[in-house]
Parts: sequence; C-alpha cells; structure tokens
Amino acid sequence: MLPRRTGLRQGIGDDCAVLSVSARKDLLVTTDLFIENVHFLRRWQNPRSVGYKTLARGLSDIAAMGGIPRFAFLSLGLPAKTNEKWLRDFFHGFFTLAGSAGVVLAGGDTGRSRSDFFADIIVTGEAPAGTAVMRSGARPGDQIWVTGHLGLAAWGLRTQERTKREVRSSEFRRFFFPEPRINVGRFLRERKFASAMMDISDGLSLDLSRLCEASCVGAKIKEANIPRRPDCSLRDALQGGEDLELLFTVSPRRAGSLPPSIDGVRLTCIGEIVPQRGLVLVRRNRETPLPVQGFQHF
Amino acid sequence: MLPRRTGLRQGIGDDCAVLSVSARKDLLVTTDLFIENVHFLRRWQNPRSVGYKTLARGLSDIAAMGGIPRFAFLSLGLPAKTNEKWLRDFFHGFFTLAGSAGVVLAGGDTGRSRSDFFADIIVTGEAPAGTAVMRSGARPGDQIWVTGHLGLAAWGLRTQERTKREVRSSEFRRFFFPEPRINVGRFLRERKFASAMMDISDGLSLDLSRLCEASCVGAKIKEANIPRRPDCSLRDALQGGEDLELLFTVSPRRAGSLPPSIDGVRLTCIGEIVPQRGLVLVRRNRETPLPVQGFQHF
Repeated sequence: MLPRRTGLRQGIGDDCAVLSVSARKDLLVTTDLFIENVHFLRRWQNPRSVGYKTLARGLSDIAAMGGIPRFAFLSLGLPAKTNEKWLRDFFHGFFTLAGSAGVVLAGGDTGRSRSDFFADIIVTGEAPAGTAVMRSGARPGDQIWVTGHLGLAAWGLRTQERTKREVRSSEFRRFFFPEPRINVGRFLRERKFASAMMDISDGLSLDLSRLCEASCVGAKIKEANIPRRPDCSLRDALQGGEDLELLFTVSPRRAGSLPPSIDGVRLTCIGEIVPQRGLVLVRRNRETPLPVQGFQHF
Repeated sequence: MLPRRTGLRQGIGDDCAVLSVSARKDLLVTTDLFIENVHFLRRWQNPRSVGYKTLARGLSDIAAMGGIPRFAFLSLGLPAKTNEKWLRDFFHGFFTLAGSAGVVLAGGDTGRSRSDFFADIIVTGEAPAGTAVMRSGARPGDQIWVTGHLGLAAWGLRTQERTKREVRSSEFRRFFFPEPRINVGRFLRERKFASAMMDISDGLSLDLSRLCEASCVGAKIKEANIPRRPDCSLRDALQGGEDLELLFTVSPRRAGSLPPSIDGVRLTCIGEIVPQRGLVLVRRNRETPLPVQGFQHF
C-alpha cells in the first residue's frame, strides 16, 4: 500500500496543475495544443520554429510557476502530406530547445490527421513542496512587474505578414524562437519575490485581467512604463500574444531588493495592484479603463 | 535547491513512462491520441462511448504497469460543427469512468480543429518505487497469461458495421465501454506475480511480439487455450484491437499460486516464453509460425 493519497494542490485555472508527490516536492504539469492554421501558418513559419515553439509554450508555463522543467511528452497528429524533411526540421527545433532547457522527451503518441498538423505538448516540472507561484497571490499594494519587452512577438508576426516572407533579423526572434524565462521564474520563486506570477501568452491586458481575477483584485498600470521597443505600438504591447514574458507581482516590502535584471533579462515595474476590480491605464496622469482584449489566433 | 535530480526509469517503449519522483514512489505517465475517423467513427459510436474510451485507453496503460491511476489531463481539438449535446455526452462518458476509477481531471487545453474531432489524453498514476511492471521482464520458461476473453471488441465492431447501427447488447460492451483492468494489474504487481506485462490494444499477436521484443525472447502459444467466446473467430482473438485486456508473464515457480480470477476477471494461461525469437502457434500439436498482424484503425 502507498503511504498516502497524492493530493492536488492546484487544478484547472493556473499555468500548470500542481500535484503533491512527496513531502518535499510538488510536480507541475502543463498541456498545450499547437495547431496548424490556428496557432501557426506553415507558409510563414519554418518547421524549426514550429518545433521550438511547441516546446517553448510548455516550458513557459513551467517558468510561470517558478518550476524546474524535467520531462516532455509529445503527441503529434500527422497529415498524409507531411514531408520527412519538414518533420526532421520540426524535431531539430524541438530538441534544440529541449537540450538547452535540460528537458528529456519521455513519451508521446502519433496519429494520422486528415487535415492539419497538430501537436499536444505536455511538460512536467518540479518545485519544492508548497513553493510554486500561483496566479492567485496578488494583494492590493503589490507592484506589477514584467520581464523583457512586450509586443515583440506581435510586431515580428505583423512585419512578416506584410513582407510575406520569413524575417530573419534577431529582432523577430521573440516570435519565432522565444526564450522561456525559466531562470527568471526560478529565481523569483527561490528568493520569494513573486506573490503571484503567470506568463504572457495572450497579451498583457488579457493575461493581467486573469491574474487579477484569480487574486480577486484589480490593477492600475502606467502607459509610459510598459517596456516596448520604439517600433512597437502600444496596442502590440497591450494585446500582442505569444511574447512568453513573465508577469508577476511583488510586495512593496520586497520590491526594493529586486535586481534590475535577472539572467540578462530586464525587469520593469509597470503598475500596482488595487482593491477595486478592473484594469485601469494611467496616461499622462489621466486614468482610463483598460479594455480587456487579447491576442486572437488565426 | 532540490535534493536530487528526478530520474527517468523508463522512457519511450513501454505502456507508460516511469519517473522516479521520490525515494518511495514512482510516477507513471501515458499519453494517447483518440482521433475521429482514425480511431473512431462518429456515426457508429455514440459520444458517451467516445468520451469513455478516450479515458479508458489511458487507464489501461496505467493498469498495464500495475499502477494506481490518479490524474487526467485532456486536450481537445474541436471542429466548428461540434454540437453542444455531443460534447456534453462525451464528457458524461468521460466523467463516468473517471469517477469509478477515482481519477481527477487536473488540466488540459482546447483548440479549434478545421476538420475532425480529436482528443489527447494524459493519465498519471503511481506505484511504489521500482515496482512498476515493464514489458521487458519476460524470461524463457515463464508462462503467458491473459485476462478476460480476446477478440470481443473486434467482434462487436464488426457486428455493428454489418448492422449499420449501434448494438446495445452487453456482449458488445467490450468495444464501446471496455473496463480497464486496473485492479487486476495492481494485484499482479503487488503480489509480484507478473514478470512482464502490457495491455492488448492492437491485437494479441502484435502486442505479444512487442513484449517478446522488449524482453529479447520468443513465445509459443496454444490455439486451443486462447480464451474467446464461441462466436468470436480465431482471427478476431489474435488480431482484433482495442480489447484492453492484460497480457502478462509469470515464472513457473509463482504460477501455481495464481488465482483463477481476480476481481471477477478470468485469467488464462495461453502459452510459454521460449528463448528463440519469433511467435509460434500450436494447433493440434502442430507448430506454425504466427504472423504478426495487428489491428488496423480506420
């Protein structure tokens, strides 16, 4: 007989499910679909990027809990027309990221798909028991922080749509080869900086509204503080999807000790958690409600 | 810092991946695709059965390791034409089995599918460290055993194809609502009866050849011993897929203590593991090579 029943610390509603597997350790599990013509277009995205992003989306969910990724499971729906070179390149992209993240492919399945290619990625990770950072821990007065620059992925995608060919500039890497913020998430969890955390995959306004909802609070963010490159529009930064940056909150007591960057990734304070529900955007000292609009896939 | 790196006891190539998560416990993980027009036909199979079987296939993989199922993660690709009633019935079937197996749905994802419905099911389970029963443990001289009757699922499917409507007789339940052999697998693992084990999902001959390959052995089975209902053909019993019965081997030393049935499920010895590779069928004392042919999906 097993000593005790495994418990579910967090089910549906966060970036990962959190399962208690021993007195010392929690297991994190995330699943993500990546479907051709819904999440990516084959003619605009090379297969290495498709393979890379399939895994990156799962790793970003583990990073969002402050977890350490361990294993991946990959189920593929393959259309009859899938060519071998495309699939080899897909796996090249997948395993390049798996290798650098220290993740082992431990299982999966393949099946035929009558139309589009699809991948379902499952990533498991771990964190010491009870330490995974949830979406629900933000409190009024906490500062709101983000990693990197927002809107880069949307900008890269839009520029490529306009030029009709794959843009190779390093500026566009955030869309095609986004680096999951694993080390940043882990640092924030280990040093107990983050009271709540999630990744930005559907745009800041939509994802911030989710974090606020889970925490039963509201947020006020300053337009001027949102970190974006000069070419990126405010709309890209607020609504652009797939940035895979981290959004987290820090109590004012701890915020003073937060370093300006972690592992080479810049951290920026963009606002504050408030008790009143809803999102507010502060522009030149004028407050306006921020509409919750997120990234729409194809 | 975590005390030690999580290890992978068994990766791709068995019914489940086996991850070492603590000194006392291993985690089992299986993923299975269930695709419309590949694994099931919507016009022949009601949505309750589709939802039930989606989970049953994953549970059967956990049973095949002797594991105790705990959590499920479900990713669904939904065509625009999916109607609400169909989906509600799908979940009714899914949760009926989840409830009876004591499994909690802990996460998942949904996405749009441009053509067919698909489900990717992930089931996690557990077993005391180092005790999960692999495919690779069969040794020459071990007896080969199976649970229940073979070929029932293929027979049910074929009869329905002929009559063009869903057959409701309890005889056909093995195809539409197969009961995963969780208690049998667990019993065999706890009492250390099984030297190797797997589930029969692609037909006896194909699955037995996989077990033999993993164990570097061959097998000799007796036609007369293969448990089948009078109406079922030998071909159904050898090549019929989706029975979700268990196939396992028992050392001759332990075989004498094996009960005739476990949890109401009959156990039958069908042959013996031999050192020479390949499968042999014994029919009226004549030995013929058994061709390895498995169940082909639609």
